[in-house]
Amino acid sequence: MECNMMIKGCTILTMDRGRIIKRGLIAINNERIEYVGREEEAGDIKAERIIDGHGKVAMPGLINCHTHIAMTLFRGIAEDQEVNRWLRETIWPLEAKLDPLDVYFGSLLGCLEMIKSGTTCFCDMYLYGESVVRAAERSGLRAVIAPGIIEAGDRRIGEKMLAESVRISEKYRCYAGGRITTRLGPHAVYTCSLDLLKKVRDNASSLKVGVHIHLAESKEAAIRVREERGISEVSILDEAGLLDSNLLAAHCIHLSREEIGILAERDVKVVYNPVSNMKLASGIPRIKEMLDLGVTVGLGTDGPASNNALDMFETMKTAALLQKIYYKDPKVLPARKVLEMATIDGAKALGLEDITGSIEAGKKADIILVDMRKPHLTPVHNVYASLVYSARGCDVDTTIVNGEILMENREVKRLREDEVIEKAEKTALNLILR
Amino acid sequence: MECNMMIKGCTILTMDRGRIIKRGLIAINNERIEYVGREEEAGDIKAERIIDGHGKVAMPGLINCHTHIAMTLFRGIAEDQEVNRWLRETIWPLEAKLDPLDVYFGSLLGCLEMIKSGTTCFCDMYLYGESVVRAAERSGLRAVIAPGIIEAGDRRIGEKMLAESVRISEKYRCYAGGRITTRLGPHAVYTCSLDLLKKVRDNASSLKVGVHIHLAESKEAAIRVREERGISEVSILDEAGLLDSNLLAAHCIHLSREEIGILAERDVKVVYNPVSNMKLASGIPRIKEMLDLGVTVGLGTDGPASNNALDMFETMKTAALLQKIYYKDPKVLPARKVLEMATIDGAKALGLEDITGSIEAGKKADIILVDMRKPHLTPVHNVYASLVYSARGCDVDTTIVNGEILMENREVKRLREDEVIEKAEKTALNLILR
Repeated sequence: MECNMMIKGCTILTMDRGRIIKRGLIAINNERIEYVGREEEAGDIKAERIIDGHGKVAMPGLINCHTHIAMTLFRGIAEDQEVNRWLRETIWPLEAKLDPLDVYFGSLLGCLEMIKSGTTCFCDMYLYGESVVRAAERSGLRAVIAPGIIEAGDRRIGEKMLAESVRISEKYRCYAGGRITTRLGPHAVYTCSLDLLKKVRDNASSLKVGVHIHLAESKEAAIRVREERGISEVSILDEAGLLDSNLLAAHCIHLSREEIGILAERDVKVVYNPVSNMKLASGIPRIKEMLDLGVTVGLGTDGPASNNALDMFETMKTAALLQKIYYKDPKVLPARKVLEMATIDGAKALGLEDITGSIEAGKKADIILVDMRKPHLTPVHNVYASLVYSARGCDVDTTIVNGEILMENREVKRLREDEVIEKAEKTALNLILR
Repeated sequence: MECNMMIKGCTILTMDRGRIIKRGLIAINNERIEYVGREEEAGDIKAERIIDGHGKVAMPGLINCHTHIAMTLFRGIAEDQEVNRWLRETIWPLEAKLDPLDVYFGSLLGCLEMIKSGTTCFCDMYLYGESVVRAAERSGLRAVIAPGIIEAGDRRIGEKMLAESVRISEKYRCYAGGRITTRLGPHAVYTCSLDLLKKVRDNASSLKVGVHIHLAESKEAAIRVREERGISEVSILDEAGLLDSNLLAAHCIHLSREEIGILAERDVKVVYNPVSNMKLASGIPRIKEMLDLGVTVGLGTDGPASNNALDMFETMKTAALLQKIYYKDPKVLPARKVLEMATIDGAKALGLEDITGSIEAGKKADIILVDMRKPHLTPVHNVYASLVYSARGCDVDTTIVNGEILMENREVKRLREDEVIEKAEKTALNLILR
């Protein structure tokens, strides 16, 4: 067999039904994985390029199912504040000043951070979706872009944002050779009317794209919705016809047992954002119960303004720890399940499980190498535990997306790191002074 | 002024009453800080060696107030288990097999990990305290070693361990030029009799060393103590005469409001170990209330078997996040206070505030440089927030302890990194096979 690239000598965590391969070999041709197995059983494979994987773990790239990457610009800008004040006094006024170029540079910084911490695919909801598309395209990352739609009491604004979200979703729904896809992004039930949500459903259905929304993140908003409209957020989504397997719902904190049951029944996909949920004191979603009912749960960092990082390794560890302390049971959410959530389950949540999320022949080559020759990764008694509880984003040595090396030995290839940092710094400063 | 070393051009986070210096200069002579201030106001200082601090933050080295560093050997060995089972089936049988050399190599790995993640001082409680002393001495770190004392129902064992703890504490109470000091380390109230605790107090008092103990970590143990002895853990410590400013109590989770009040009144020092508390599902200590009452609270990682890292940057972030979610208030435990806990308050907890914990002329030079030219540290709107919520141990570029550079540009000086990793790996493997 002839191929473009070969990774040799690594331990492979395939995330394909628990298969771990020691002294493994991965052959990649063009964008796809051609072979995964033991080196000694690989037969005669010729590759233009050989990556030495000794002392490293190869695993599927991490999938960040919910973020707003351009918010890198606001990282650390208003800390340790009450959430409404944070939004009203700082975030929203700054967002009102944003232009498409700001979002582009902020997004590019987010992409750079993700490449450097082992994320190969992300789902983003934000303003100026086209700028996020451009940044994702430029960076080489796999992305699902959901241009945000907020009505907030003004029907005309809602219609306008819907039209823009539909336009972008249509234009980029299979873009950059399929590396970039789209969803419609209604912000939340409490910021969109039932009428608008129904239009979102109709458009998503005719475009054949999914929908991404915030659900039950804020207790206050959940109570307000119930008071003002007489029914819960979940019931409104149901009435809008959105409660199905194409819905990706971020947070899902303030839900009743029955509502969790409904999400499970309708195969709604959930994103768990433990760091942001803790930092904003939003509450703790009952992930264990969701998993017990068979809900597909992916992991997200949420935006870097409420995290303040895009490091999915940190998110994995916090995801496990927060469920353990909530259920007062250290057995809850074991390391292997967390790794599944960050890879194959994340791919399922985004409807991309045939393309990414595991290292299997036939899938696209979205692979990271973690360098295990570090004091904090010594010894390795259990590779799942090492990766979830001890590893950090900076231990990622090589990041490959769609068969292309985006970082090797921590050197970023496509993007010029200094330039991206400098542009984002200037953009953030300018935004404050503007 | 002539001095050995000078750090120029950095932002200095002194942790001395909130003083932040831009374009700062630190002059170090022998072990001590001679000058801290603005570069342009420094006057004529000559140094044998100049460290370029541009793009970096200089801050006091982090202080890990509670750990068991030799447990690096058990990192990841028995994960996601019920705590009693974890201890009884895995940790205790392995500890029974440990010898002094194992503890030395495990401790050395822990020291290496701390140097690489910006910790300059740690307080350790473990078996074979002399091995931990040797590792600390070799590594160059500042350390407070509390050789562990466990009676667990056998008076003779208790006496023997007390004698050994006293012997080591006496021998090393001002060791390696004062870089290493000691404490007595009774494990916990539920594993030591009142009689033994009284002897600990008498010995600590005549040796003029402090005492380090686990307090109210396990709810089950707290209940058992109350059932068996009729009074609470705090009351027993009081009866033993240990409730004073020389007591460093780790965890302090399952305490009543009154008991927290007593700790405050007696100036008992508390160590908050958020990552371990979450991972073992031990519970959440009410740190906000302790701080409101004026308790000195330091931060700890706890042992790497229940964390599974010694990264104090991670511990800072988790410390803040866990209090925010517990009190349902994002304002609780702001970034600056967390940084104080990890530096100057930690020094106070260990009784070392005249020596370390801030960058001030006259103190020992325990300083780290954090390289801020990273995507996840861009932009810097608030340096406290950047360090607590976005930085990780691997962003530490240079680690200086007692005026000696232990790591520069991430290259470790005194220890040979590969050798330390290899020895520890072999030791861990051998321990399992033995």
